[in-house]
Amino acid sequence: MDLVYLAPVAALIALVFAGFSFISVKKEGTGTEKMQKIAAAIHLGAMVYLNRQYRAIAVFVVVLAIVLAVGISPLTAACFVLGAILSATAGYIGMYTATAANVRTTNAARRGIAEAFRVSFSSGSVMGMAVVGLGLFGLSLAYLALSAMGIPQETVLSTVTGFGLGASSIALFARVGGGIFTKAADVGADLVGKVEAGIPEDDPRNPAVIADNVGDNVGDVAGMGADLYESYVGSIIAAMVLGITAVKTEMYAGLDPMQLILLPMMIAALGIFSAIIGSFFVRTNKTESSAIHMAFNKGLIVAIVLVVLATYFLVTTLIGAEYVGIFYAAVAGLIAGFAIGLITEYYTSYDRAPTLSIAKAAQTGPATTIISGFAKGMESTIFPVFFVAIAIVISYQFAGLYGIAIAAVGMLSTLGISLAVDAYGPVADNAGGIAEMSHQDPKVRTITDTLDAVGNTTAAIGKGFAIGSAALTALALFSAYTLAVGLQVIDVTNPMVFVGMLIGAMLPFLFCALTMTAVGKAAYEIVIEVRRQFKEIPGLMEEKADPDYASCIAISTSSALREMIAPGILAVAAPLLVGFFLGPSALGGLLAGSLVSGFVLAITMANAGGAWDNAKKFIEQGNYGGKGSDAHKAAVVGDTVGDPFKDTSGPAINILLKLMSMVALVFAPLLILV
Amino acid sequence: MDLVYLAPVAALIALVFAGFSFISVKKEGTGTEKMQKIAAAIHLGAMVYLNRQYRAIAVFVVVLAIVLAVGISPLTAACFVLGAILSATAGYIGMYTATAANVRTTNAARRGIAEAFRVSFSSGSVMGMAVVGLGLFGLSLAYLALSAMGIPQETVLSTVTGFGLGASSIALFARVGGGIFTKAADVGADLVGKVEAGIPEDDPRNPAVIADNVGDNVGDVAGMGADLYESYVGSIIAAMVLGITAVKTEMYAGLDPMQLILLPMMIAALGIFSAIIGSFFVRTNKTESSAIHMAFNKGLIVAIVLVVLATYFLVTTLIGAEYVGIFYAAVAGLIAGFAIGLITEYYTSYDRAPTLSIAKAAQTGPATTIISGFAKGMESTIFPVFFVAIAIVISYQFAGLYGIAIAAVGMLSTLGISLAVDAYGPVADNAGGIAEMSHQDPKVRTITDTLDAVGNTTAAIGKGFAIGSAALTALALFSAYTLAVGLQVIDVTNPMVFVGMLIGAMLPFLFCALTMTAVGKAAYEIVIEVRRQFKEIPGLMEEKADPDYASCIAISTSSALREMIAPGILAVAAPLLVGFFLGPSALGGLLAGSLVSGFVLAITMANAGGAWDNAKKFIEQGNYGGKGSDAHKAAVVGDTVGDPFKDTSGPAINILLKLMSMVALVFAPLLILV
Repeated sequence: MDLVYLAPVAALIALVFAGFSFISVKKEGTGTEKMQKIAAAIHLGAMVYLNRQYRAIAVFVVVLAIVLAVGISPLTAACFVLGAILSATAGYIGMYTATAANVRTTNAARRGIAEAFRVSFSSGSVMGMAVVGLGLFGLSLAYLALSAMGIPQETVLSTVTGFGLGASSIALFARVGGGIFTKAADVGADLVGKVEAGIPEDDPRNPAVIADNVGDNVGDVAGMGADLYESYVGSIIAAMVLGITAVKTEMYAGLDPMQLILLPMMIAALGIFSAIIGSFFVRTNKTESSAIHMAFNKGLIVAIVLVVLATYFLVTTLIGAEYVGIFYAAVAGLIAGFAIGLITEYYTSYDRAPTLSIAKAAQTGPATTIISGFAKGMESTIFPVFFVAIAIVISYQFAGLYGIAIAAVGMLSTLGISLAVDAYGPVADNAGGIAEMSHQDPKVRTITDTLDAVGNTTAAIGKGFAIGSAALTALALFSAYTLAVGLQVIDVTNPMVFVGMLIGAMLPFLFCALTMTAVGKAAYEIVIEVRRQFKEIPGLMEEKADPDYASCIAISTSSALREMIAPGILAVAAPLLVGFFLGPSALGGLLAGSLVSGFVLAITMANAGGAWDNAKKFIEQGNYGGKGSDAHKAAVVGDTVGDPFKDTSGPAINILLKLMSMVALVFAPLLILV
Repeated sequence: MDLVYLAPVAALIALVFAGFSFISVKKEGTGTEKMQKIAAAIHLGAMVYLNRQYRAIAVFVVVLAIVLAVGISPLTAACFVLGAILSATAGYIGMYTATAANVRTTNAARRGIAEAFRVSFSSGSVMGMAVVGLGLFGLSLAYLALSAMGIPQETVLSTVTGFGLGASSIALFARVGGGIFTKAADVGADLVGKVEAGIPEDDPRNPAVIADNVGDNVGDVAGMGADLYESYVGSIIAAMVLGITAVKTEMYAGLDPMQLILLPMMIAALGIFSAIIGSFFVRTNKTESSAIHMAFNKGLIVAIVLVVLATYFLVTTLIGAEYVGIFYAAVAGLIAGFAIGLITEYYTSYDRAPTLSIAKAAQTGPATTIISGFAKGMESTIFPVFFVAIAIVISYQFAGLYGIAIAAVGMLSTLGISLAVDAYGPVADNAGGIAEMSHQDPKVRTITDTLDAVGNTTAAIGKGFAIGSAALTALALFSAYTLAVGLQVIDVTNPMVFVGMLIGAMLPFLFCALTMTAVGKAAYEIVIEVRRQFKEIPGLMEEKADPDYASCIAISTSSALREMIAPGILAVAAPLLVGFFLGPSALGGLLAGSLVSGFVLAITMANAGGAWDNAKKFIEQGNYGGKGSDAHKAAVVGDTVGDPFKDTSGPAINILLKLMSMVALVFAPLLILV
């Protein structure tokens, strides 16, 4: 069957599209000398961070590769290294592009919003297509190469899980380290700059301002990309593993397992084509933010419709019309992802009831701001839970356990464009910062502000989507794990399983505690340094002298790399310790417990953070006294608390859930022996 | 076997002891006219609230009694009503005593600390002994009466669960309504009084100050009492239900089921005797707070040692030396409860590292105060999870599922004294308020402050104990439920069970959101009213005119009663909806999911709140600039956020977990038919 090459071919086309997008970004002008100087500082800071991060991760990857080569198999270790390298490459490409595109977006904004929008979205497309292209290319290649070696399919699939573990390992450090970096710089910059010195955000006199801009790229581009790369790869692998056992169930009896194994990669391939076509619909000449939203929605909907139609055709012809249930599963996943995005937008948009109620609470001070924002974040978990629950029930009803994995694959099939929309945000954010720092015409700043405002919304939606896809992916991996260790049931009434669940439910809380404490510590170091510079550099406040941006970047870098170690070890060690000491059933309980508690906690933190952010924006537009009022001060407190909630700890939970399931799945062959 | 009467006799002795303690409180003098006037206002407010609350609950009880009488059996309905009435009675007695003891403690403080301590602890003893006395008396009476009717034991036990549901129903409203009342008044009083008007806490010019003092009684006496009454009764019932099926397992094969059914009530009876004896050791003449702590610890340890010895004797003689495992289970529970208390003290004491790190973070403002407090709260979940996990593993290993329930019974066996220690706190707190408002000699206030400081610590420990016992009780009830609906396994790999777990994990978050929003709304109403009085009552600030205390009490009362309806309906409806629509297995998943996520969330909220409270106290002692400094202002924000965390939402989760399990257990006969 030649269709087997559909996946690598589609992946290559994605990479070619990424290349063209990159060229279209690069040929833009870079503006004034001042702009170029600032952009170069951001670019350099981001690249230095990434290089240092990758060097640290390399140690981890080598150690784990040796463990895998000895404990599982050398081929698994090879797949692991490949998965890690390709994820790192995607992150590198995305970051390189984003830090090249920011200043070009500012420059294009001098000509008009349509140009600026095109540049920033093209940059996002490079990230989106690099992630799906490298992910699918590497995975399909690894699968085809292993199959060509004549190894039995069972072994091929258990070996290919190593690729997923590689993706998870990079995601862990990129998300955790990036999340700590970005919020340490952001909180540190705000605490001294906005609160103490009373200078505006993105003010070039603030020594931490470049670190803050670097952080946007490190966290929201590289971190988010690695997170979704992991989900993308993980969901496909889980579906393949579940596919081979599905033929042993009544629902799929008599089918050739190859059909079910190849299907997920093919859906992903169709998703790439759909996303590319959809990208061409993301165009606007209008200046309102609603028009930009519309452009995004047009592109996303075109991609979704195309992939739905193509998947229907694929399932009914490749597998057979009587297996249309698989198609329903994919659609259930797609719709759940879209619906979670919509409800996230509702809870975090500054013109909707939840955020407005927080802004209102800001009038009675910071305490009520925190209480109401936290309550709204908790409340916002209802609908995502129901959407995921419905997707699970539908996909399971129509397509069994395999269907749940296919729902995750479906949800992520159009990732090429949805990640592009997401990665556009930090570029627009940076462009605004560069416009501010290089003292551009207010008209330019208005354009970048419009793009940035849209970016805040797409970022919130993207976070919801990332959490939802992480949950479904983790559930699929969990199912794959139970099959891999041969557990027929994981019985909650068995106290050992319950103990596993209890420990599992605690882990996301502990993970949050570690990452929030890390941000607090790192931000404190930044605060000390910024205060020192304000005091010791003469003429800084009068703009007669430049601050030392590099020292703040160095502090953020060092502390992020130092502080990511403990959570990293926790995420890898916890499932192994429970698995080997309490047994595979207890580990199953741990995975399930962490999944359900982590999912709701991640949504709580992401949405509370997003809502605080926009409640502050609402007040800054002149409501309840506007900027400088007591309500505004209270809202700034909320926003600052929300920063690590939404950008560090919340997203880090996604990684924890997927990584622990992946570790369990990869080490299943050893766990059976326990 | 005449031993059957041990339980009701012990219960009656507890009630007699409560009566003597009450008399010893009442014969104290009530001090000056000013003191009497303030105390009368608090007493009246508390009693009015309780009456109105009970009237509202009566409607709920009648409706649910009719549903039970029709759907399950009239006898179950009768047990339900009895359980509810006795819980309400215990709450009434405790509140009545506490609001009589507060002014008497202040008065006794004029003579010295030993006297004041004796009065306040006697008041706590009334509550403690009323709870265990009425709980065990009612339960054993219901059991004996039903058994005397010649009904088969299986039916007797499933009928007696109604008694537990009655306890749960009162606990729900007492905890939720009481929690909303107390924090609405507290937050409202602080926001306008301390923050806006700049007058101290407990200042008689603040119109919400009496409502705040009423709230301490409503929340911390009646609410806490009902919560632990529910755990006490629930754990005994769960153990009895598990006892009858335990004899069908290999571990207890050949035993007379009556032995295992009666054992939990007998352990409770021995606990009552131990608690009474222990109470006599709670005496001190020293003035340091460490001496008071020591006095409490002496009493608690005497009680624990006695009950351990007695239980060993009971198990080995009544059941047999080869069943000593049951004794280990009881000890595992007792130790886990004690250990959770210790770790709670560590995380919330103002002289320990976690709280000190929050105080340090207060120097950089409210945002870092919130972030670090929240992180510490999350971190503090590790050890309680491990303690409970170890208790579960040990008790299960040595005594099966029955052992888990016995661990809960063991943990709660000395409740008569541990609740007395707990209920002493709000009396001391009130006594301090009365001293302040009636302008007593500073020496008096110093004594009440010492008592109050100890009370803060015992309150934090009590909260940890309440959460831990709630978790073990809910787990025991969950096990009883699975047996009652005849589920051999609850399989997490079954997606319907997983969906139930996911919904279950979300419910504590939703419950918190509802209760926190309720506090916010109610506090806002108080703020408006206090501001109005400050503006409209001439001479109020110069103490030439009295504020209208009653209006603030009325607002707190109305809003608490209104706002407790939604969470109440959620807690009862959620398990029934999932049980009837998704099936008994999914309901099992819901219970397990809510248990694990609710347990960690409750600890997070309770400990974060306690740590913020004491971080503020630490700064008020003159550290980091002391009272009025920026660090202090930041710490006050943390304390205000922590108020609903630790006193409303966190404790309400205990109730949610137990109530949902109890509803599932009571409605099991109908759920089997689904």
